[in-house]
Amino acid sequence: MIHASRPSTLQTIGEFGLIRALEQHCHHLRSDVLQGIGDDAAILRTTPNEALIVSTDLAIEGIHFDLSFESFQDVGYRTAVANISDMAAMGATPKFLLVGLAVPPSTAVKSLKDLYRGFKEPCRRYNISMVGGDTSSSQSGLFLCMTILGQVKTNHALKRSGAKVGDHVYVTGTLGDSKAGLQILQRRATQKNPNAPQPYESFLIKRHLRPTPRPAMGQQLAKSRWAHGAIDISDGLSGDIQHLCKASGVGVELWASQLPISRQCATYAKAYGHSSIELALEGGEDYELLFTVSPRHQQTMAKLSRTFKTPLTCIGEIRPRSFGLKLKSEGGISRSIAKHSYDHFSKKPIR
Amino acid sequence: MIHASRPSTLQTIGEFGLIRALEQHCHHLRSDVLQGIGDDAAILRTTPNEALIVSTDLAIEGIHFDLSFESFQDVGYRTAVANISDMAAMGATPKFLLVGLAVPPSTAVKSLKDLYRGFKEPCRRYNISMVGGDTSSSQSGLFLCMTILGQVKTNHALKRSGAKVGDHVYVTGTLGDSKAGLQILQRRATQKNPNAPQPYESFLIKRHLRPTPRPAMGQQLAKSRWAHGAIDISDGLSGDIQHLCKASGVGVELWASQLPISRQCATYAKAYGHSSIELALEGGEDYELLFTVSPRHQQTMAKLSRTFKTPLTCIGEIRPRSFGLKLKSEGGISRSIAKHSYDHFSKKPIR
Repeated sequence: MIHASRPSTLQTIGEFGLIRALEQHCHHLRSDVLQGIGDDAAILRTTPNEALIVSTDLAIEGIHFDLSFESFQDVGYRTAVANISDMAAMGATPKFLLVGLAVPPSTAVKSLKDLYRGFKEPCRRYNISMVGGDTSSSQSGLFLCMTILGQVKTNHALKRSGAKVGDHVYVTGTLGDSKAGLQILQRRATQKNPNAPQPYESFLIKRHLRPTPRPAMGQQLAKSRWAHGAIDISDGLSGDIQHLCKASGVGVELWASQLPISRQCATYAKAYGHSSIELALEGGEDYELLFTVSPRHQQTMAKLSRTFKTPLTCIGEIRPRSFGLKLKSEGGISRSIAKHSYDHFSKKPIR
Repeated sequence: MIHASRPSTLQTIGEFGLIRALEQHCHHLRSDVLQGIGDDAAILRTTPNEALIVSTDLAIEGIHFDLSFESFQDVGYRTAVANISDMAAMGATPKFLLVGLAVPPSTAVKSLKDLYRGFKEPCRRYNISMVGGDTSSSQSGLFLCMTILGQVKTNHALKRSGAKVGDHVYVTGTLGDSKAGLQILQRRATQKNPNAPQPYESFLIKRHLRPTPRPAMGQQLAKSRWAHGAIDISDGLSGDIQHLCKASGVGVELWASQLPISRQCATYAKAYGHSSIELALEGGEDYELLFTVSPRHQQTMAKLSRTFKTPLTCIGEIRPRSFGLKLKSEGGISRSIAKHSYDHFSKKPIR
């Protein structure tokens, strides 16, 4: 008996299914590819001592950003930061940027100059040069593809795969602010004459539109070789801790009471009946660093936090794979960390 | 008196106007950027001796390709070749590829696997590894952004800017085949039951769908330091010779009688009342190499052609800038080479 089956589409297999399907086609690897697909960036040996770190990120109107409530400059800024954050996650010094840009022909030149102003702001701060790109017209909306290149000493590159059982799990900054800021922007976009945002709202909006990547911290963690496993928070803590644990072959216990939540995010969550823990877990685009270190480095981490004037919080501990991935609530009850990473093919835009 | 003017859009300033406007934002250059925007690829000094060559290219459905008459595998193949050809134009060895890929959620997984099969074919032939990428959904059509990385000895990289007065202008292979093949495909797509293509048509279709890049020739030209200026034919000879002359600050005389035109292209031109000279001048996507060498290397070029089993034709001579850019017809009459490069913002898709 023959079953006629419908051909599978991206809707049925989802984004991660697609990535798995396509990875099979990427197995022809040169010997100078130290790490191919599967981390925040590829690691390439172009010289005996220095590795080249390279990563590509898409930013598409209606999927990754919404010009009804953010400016071209905001979009440029956030796209550059997303790429710089990938370099931070590898411990690399970001150096060069290339931009593929497709735009509807009716777009104002001023808007595109604003977009480039957005790119330029973090590029200047982190000494990154825009060295190339390509432009084309688009039949629907703005389409960006950014490639970033950086360097790090070959054996120093941070990877998702190095976490060890017993490691403490650290995160920089605070979590959930960006998602809260996005929700505020989305809500205000539907209101006719929204009131001026309250100070806590302005803070969260800024955290969404002007996130802070952590390249200096990443570089220090790589140079010192303190960090065993590292990733940046782009999908959200719950998704990104899963990527790290899967790559390292380990489990984790995260402690809800320790998740770093800003005063402003807590105020927002209370005002709108949200859970700030959920915001911290599910909020993507925080662009904070998540990494694991041996517990003997506890004092060092405190010192590192002071040196870089960046909050560093221990939010859990790496466990054996058999333990699974759990979140221990403030009341001491553990629950599995569910996978909530954003899937571009199975959810509706935006985000 | 104040004139209220409409804000300029991409339609009014065109693609090259946009590039000029955006280049102003790319002037913050690190000292290790040896060549930024303005050539086929950027030249970056990542080690004392070897330069990293990197380039990004867009390929967008409805602009760069049409799935009504080419397969996903064809699109993958051609996109990879366009990138490899950029490396050839710099004399670099192509090594690593990254792909940003946005697709409508209803796309069949099989189609995307075919796309990757298309990427893989030239990658295997030239020993290039796919090392990274990003995927997303698209609200309209397939969107590809490919980044390629290669290496070349620092002072050996070929540039558009090195052509010298008196140089001979050479081109590999034959010109115009790809455009003729595209026209045949477009014509057949509008016919209800087209006849089987004639052999000359099949040849030209294949030249469009499966172009041959020239990385080995480019590498040899770089290593030997014979070539003074180089570019690949992606926009079309008339447009690309202008890019080369502008970057080198020179003029040129091209000889219509010497343009290398395949027998099949000549047959096609005759059958449809086209000018094969015009096809050779205006046809983009040939991915042949155009370069200039001192006339004393005439014998060397003949030998090079035999060694690489690749036709090499001298099609003109570099002149002072004041001479301009001219095409000398078979009857001895000269005319200016008009600019016919494709502008994505001022013409209608497709191409």
